Amino acid sequence: MNYVLKNIPIRTEKPRTKGYTMVMDKGLSIREVEDFVDANADFVDIVKLGWATSYVTKNLEAKIKVYRDAGIPVYFGGTLFEAFVVRDQFEDYIRVLDKYKLEFAEVSDGSISMPHDEKCTYIERLSKLVTVLSEVGSKDAAKIIPPYRWIEQMSAELQAGSWKVIGEAREGGTVGLFRDSGEVRQGLVEEILTKIPEDKIIWEAPQKMQQVWFVKLLGANVNLGNIAPHELIPLETIRLGLRGDTFDHFLGVK
Amino acid sequence: MNYVLKNIPIRTEKPRTKGYTMVMDKGLSIREVEDFVDANADFVDIVKLGWATSYVTKNLEAKIKVYRDAGIPVYFGGTLFEAFVVRDQFEDYIRVLDKYKLEFAEVSDGSISMPHDEKCTYIERLSKLVTVLSEVGSKDAAKIIPPYRWIEQMSAELQAGSWKVIGEAREGGTVGLFRDSGEVRQGLVEEILTKIPEDKIIWEAPQKMQQVWFVKLLGANVNLGNIAPHELIPLETIRLGLRGDTFDHFLGVK
Amino acid sequence: MNYVLKNIPIRTEKPRTKGYTMVMDKGLSIREVEDFVDANADFVDIVKLGWATSYVTKNLEAKIKVYRDAGIPVYFGGTLFEAFVVRDQFEDYIRVLDKYKLEFAEVSDGSISMPHDEKCTYIERLSKLVTVLSEVGSKDAAKIIPPYRWIEQMSAELQAGSWKVIGEAREGGTVGLFRDSGEVRQGLVEEILTKIPEDKIIWEAPQKMQQVWFVKLLGANVNLGNIAPHELIPLETIRLGLRGDTFDHFLGVK
Repeated sequence: MNYVLKNIPIRTEKPRTKGYTMVMDKGLSIREVEDFVDANADFVDIVKLGWATSYVTKNLEAKIKVYRDAGIPVYFGGTLFEAFVVRDQFEDYIRVLDKYKLEFAEVSDGSISMPHDEKCTYIERLSKLVTVLSEVGSKDAAKIIPPYRWIEQMSAELQAGSWKVIGEAREGGTVGLFRDSGEVRQGLVEEILTKIPEDKIIWEAPQKMQQVWFVKLLGANVNLGNIAPHELIPLETIRLGLRGDTFDHFLGVK
Repeated sequence: MNYVLKNIPIRTEKPRTKGYTMVMDKGLSIREVEDFVDANADFVDIVKLGWATSYVTKNLEAKIKVYRDAGIPVYFGGTLFEAFVVRDQFEDYIRVLDKYKLEFAEVSDGSISMPHDEKCTYIERLSKLVTVLSEVGSKDAAKIIPPYRWIEQMSAELQAGSWKVIGEAREGGTVGLFRDSGEVRQGLVEEILTKIPEDKIIWEAPQKMQQVWFVKLLGANVNLGNIAPHELIPLETIRLGLRGDTFDHFLGVK
Repeated sequence: MNYVLKNIPIRTEKPRTKGYTMVMDKGLSIREVEDFVDANADFVDIVKLGWATSYVTKNLEAKIKVYRDAGIPVYFGGTLFEAFVVRDQFEDYIRVLDKYKLEFAEVSDGSISMPHDEKCTYIERLSKLVTVLSEVGSKDAAKIIPPYRWIEQMSAELQAGSWKVIGEAREGGTVGLFRDSGEVRQGLVEEILTKIPEDKIIWEAPQKMQQVWFVKLLGANVNLGNIAPHELIPLETIRLGLRGDTFDHFLGVK
């Protein structure tokens, strides 16, 4: 850090097992990726190329390489997995992962309907090839999943081989963990945490008030995802109690 | 594309006659323009330098050249035309178009009041020098234009020489085609389409839900405008059914 | 300017005493700063590194130098001052200002409670070392300060040595001068202006409608702050009556 402030919460360092930050890239150019890693590489643990944006991304290999050279693995959003599965092209999907030498993959069912044991079979299969992140929660605001189902699904997916499970929020932060207003479904989060270890969950929290809410609940080193590239440094200050929103929260805490 | 997915709608390619995308640049630096065209040149057909931003843009000639060298023509927002006309400087406006060797110009009356036949006279005159885009719809939320007037004006402007007509939405997407909430005035759009050929209209649709609405109504190759530079790749995935919002829409469609 | 339009309000030029624009940088990379100054250096008078983002900013010295070389001084957000004070590290704060050779500093009490005469003592002390901007208004939406208190505090802070006082709005524009909706507290602003000279106040106005409101009230050369880097050129056009929102406002005004 650039100067010494007392009583700042201790942040984990890369490679992190907790305090993980996943960033969503929805179409940065190569030079924009260079700019991003230049300012933020220490704070970002993994980058998701949002949904199926990788399909239309120019110089995809070169772009992935910029991230990789900065120590940041890349994976493709779960919607791409679903786009292959719904077209009966799962074998092609595996070839794509291989072609781009990806070490992570996301399994989700946010846009398709799939029996949960089928989802777990995909997780099991993919987890033999790559590290799997699996996402729970629908992208459809009308499909409210009760807490006990979130827990059942997360448990089953971790058992099937998921490295971590992701709580769904979309880019805008308005479904899954959140109400239409962006407000956190607090009871849901608290109930999940009674059964699933905190370090196995990445909470998608694209909006500032959501990030603040999770940092207040779970501390500086909560795992957060779907962070916009230009919100990384702001998030880091929220984690450290150095923005108005969490300023009081860590004072007195060693 | 980077890999093969079946049943993806066929996108038109440049130079496009439909499936046109107009991007609004409201002040990018030259290097930001380079980044933008590097990642997006295939997806953008024309760039508007928003309203009168060209008045205060540094190195304007060099900036236009970066776009032009990437095969993307540039034009100045209609508010600039209005700023010249309201000051009785229309002849100066023509000299500006000439100075920057622009091949397109926009004629609008979003911020000024002008008899419609006078607007058409401007279109007629300019269409002898450049390709004219003309915009229908007020920037004033209080001025609701009924559907039959939209149709009358669009018809008259096309007849006067407009290459395409633009449905107004502002940068924020809250007037003209849209309600204050950003919601599409659906009946208006449908009525317009009974009389004006779809390929003669560019719909300004800066917000994601508006883009989704138009893609669902008119397909992957709808003409859309006022797209923010960082929303181009997301828009392309919406057009192709590769984002959650339109994921189901094209399945089964060849 | 790139071409001549008649009846455009006269903008002050750098170094400005009024018509001042303060930009908030919340984490730009060095190359992004280069891009920013390339397009905007004439329009920005000072840059704030938002709240305590300077704590986690990479290559902070080099970044400050890019701004400085473009003729733009930099200062650290008031939350950083508060973070040092609340930890009883004010002397360390002075050393930080010195280390980075900053010529400006902000004194605020948005996140901490402090007797107002203590705040003025800090202003007095710092004003012997640097040029002080002091901020009035809480970041806490629940703490509504009545107009007469705003005036008392602004007067006292100017007398204690503040070069200008800043009306608080946060990055999002929803507290201090503004209601939760982002709407301006009009009566508050008007009452303040009966007692405090306009050129001694910088109004934080991150949202477009707020900028428009102040330009309509106080003209092209109102002092505005917390402007996002990509909103500088748009703001400049609002100041000049060259965007729809203020298009009519200056017509007929020399």
